[in-house]
Amino acid sequence: MMGTMKAPEDLLRRIRQGNRFLLTSHINPDGDAIGSALGLARLLRRMGKGAVVWTRDETPTIYKPLPGSERIHVGTEPPAGFPDVFDAIIVLECPSPDRTGLEQYLGERPVINIDHHLGNQHYGVINWVDTAAPAVGEMVYRLSQGLKVALEPETAACLYLTLVTDTGGFRYANATPAAFEAAAALVRDGAHPDQVAQWLYESQPLPVLRLLGEMLQTLQVHEGGRIATVRLTQEMFRKAGASPGDSEGLIDHPRSIAGVDAVALVREREDGTHKVSLRSRGEIDVERIARQHGGGGHRNAAGFALDGDGESIRLQVVGLLAGALAATADRAGEPAQD
Amino acid sequence: MMGTMKAPEDLLRRIRQGNRFLLTSHINPDGDAIGSALGLARLLRRMGKGAVVWTRDETPTIYKPLPGSERIHVGTEPPAGFPDVFDAIIVLECPSPDRTGLEQYLGERPVINIDHHLGNQHYGVINWVDTAAPAVGEMVYRLSQGLKVALEPETAACLYLTLVTDTGGFRYANATPAAFEAAAALVRDGAHPDQVAQWLYESQPLPVLRLLGEMLQTLQVHEGGRIATVRLTQEMFRKAGASPGDSEGLIDHPRSIAGVDAVALVREREDGTHKVSLRSRGEIDVERIARQHGGGGHRNAAGFALDGDGESIRLQVVGLLAGALAATADRAGEPAQD
Repeated sequence: MMGTMKAPEDLLRRIRQGNRFLLTSHINPDGDAIGSALGLARLLRRMGKGAVVWTRDETPTIYKPLPGSERIHVGTEPPAGFPDVFDAIIVLECPSPDRTGLEQYLGERPVINIDHHLGNQHYGVINWVDTAAPAVGEMVYRLSQGLKVALEPETAACLYLTLVTDTGGFRYANATPAAFEAAAALVRDGAHPDQVAQWLYESQPLPVLRLLGEMLQTLQVHEGGRIATVRLTQEMFRKAGASPGDSEGLIDHPRSIAGVDAVALVREREDGTHKVSLRSRGEIDVERIARQHGGGGHRNAAGFALDGDGESIRLQVVGLLAGALAATADRAGEPAQD
Repeated sequence: MMGTMKAPEDLLRRIRQGNRFLLTSHINPDGDAIGSALGLARLLRRMGKGAVVWTRDETPTIYKPLPGSERIHVGTEPPAGFPDVFDAIIVLECPSPDRTGLEQYLGERPVINIDHHLGNQHYGVINWVDTAAPAVGEMVYRLSQGLKVALEPETAACLYLTLVTDTGGFRYANATPAAFEAAAALVRDGAHPDQVAQWLYESQPLPVLRLLGEMLQTLQVHEGGRIATVRLTQEMFRKAGASPGDSEGLIDHPRSIAGVDAVALVREREDGTHKVSLRSRGEIDVERIARQHGGGGHRNAAGFALDGDGESIRLQVVGLLAGALAATADRAGEPAQD
């Protein structure tokens, strides 16, 4: 089984032989980026090696409780001694070099690429890519087994967090047996699920909740309850004391309504233009709608910009989503053609 | 370790020897009650035995997608053939006989008591009580191992759901290694975490979200952000098209705000009186406040009724919570006295 593939021998050898490693990940780092880098850095230090974590962008607030996050080197200036003092650059959870935001530096030292993305470009001298891994943090856990290094509770917490964030709190299809087995081992090593949950889920900025309250005032359902739409205006952001980033994730609330198959959030941006975010279930393709309007995304999550006032955009988007529902129903009725 | 204690031999023997079992659980059944009963019923039928699940109260809507829920016998009338056709009554996840709501019938057949509650009254001819078990469904999984019966995917889904509901989606301190190991095994046996998550978290009645929107309009913070309060009026229930039960769990939203240590929800009831629900973190004791006002609960979750209009009750409760915060700070500063 892919998800239980051992860490490759050439990687273990390279790590055992090196003295000092630079670790990085992608721009706008998420839980798996930060947690796997901090966890691996602790693991390397436990082996008596030097390790520096360097990310181009700031660590998001919810990941700052992770032990070691305050030591992350942030920005486009290289850390002290770069490149000479480092044996290799380990790039975690990053499908291509440009996504590090630090591409111009990657040529200076050998690159080790550890990732789980489909379409990883195999840009390293060593490439350990396991697309069945629920999180890169779970691969780092397997790496610790290969290196026969026991995990400290803080390291276990870093790696456990990656499992939680990448599986949506064990709610996505990638909550595999391997994900739960790694979680069992990491909790045994000292990770506290309740503490990690408090970092991730009980530390909401007040303006986010106020903004959610504003947004839910605009909630409408259409097409017999199969479509839900919400709006966010600049006035609501002002009333809630919210920043642009505070609307992240709010679309999940209307998405959680029973019977709803497609959701749109029409958000007014600071310049007065509107962004439309779409979510859908199953076969309903919202990426197609987004692409036809100059945007993009995936089948079940996509976005694009649209001209007009907020309320007419809402009506227009309801029409587009109703079309997508009908198209899905049509396709379901067609004989299979391959 | 308690959490991995095997199912006792006398229980295995009794089950192997019996032909037909009646299964029940507590009033107002939750995920562990329904999931463990349906899972064990399937397990027994797989062994060629008869099994009937009987609960006094209806299965809540979110658990109705569980396979077999439509076959649950509900109410105070015994099922056909009771008591003669049953070898024993297996009571799951129930600390005392009266909590079944069917106590008058329990004397008719030998009772087998399978539970994980502290303070279980050991009321059965067999009592398997494991207070370290994350869910009774996890004990049923261990029982299947003792009986050497392979689980079908539907049975695995029933038992997996009990782990999710009783550990708060793996967010509570009882998300132990044993909980994650059972989850790994149940997913391997065919449970789908994404499907169970959709049943539990993506099937919200529309009025619940509307009511949340109304409630968040009343959100206030006090004491430098350490206390948050919200209100619900009958007018809001009407506007949202909500029933009394739809406010269940809404208090978790203000509780999730960063820096908030205590939360109050002041809810107007249908008769115009007010119910106060309190939540707190850590050492802050809200049960004491509730008890002083004729209510009750636990240290971190309690409730009571209070006279007056909603807004003055809010102010009064802010005062009580501020007192509890101060009392906690005082106690933290005192030398230990034992």
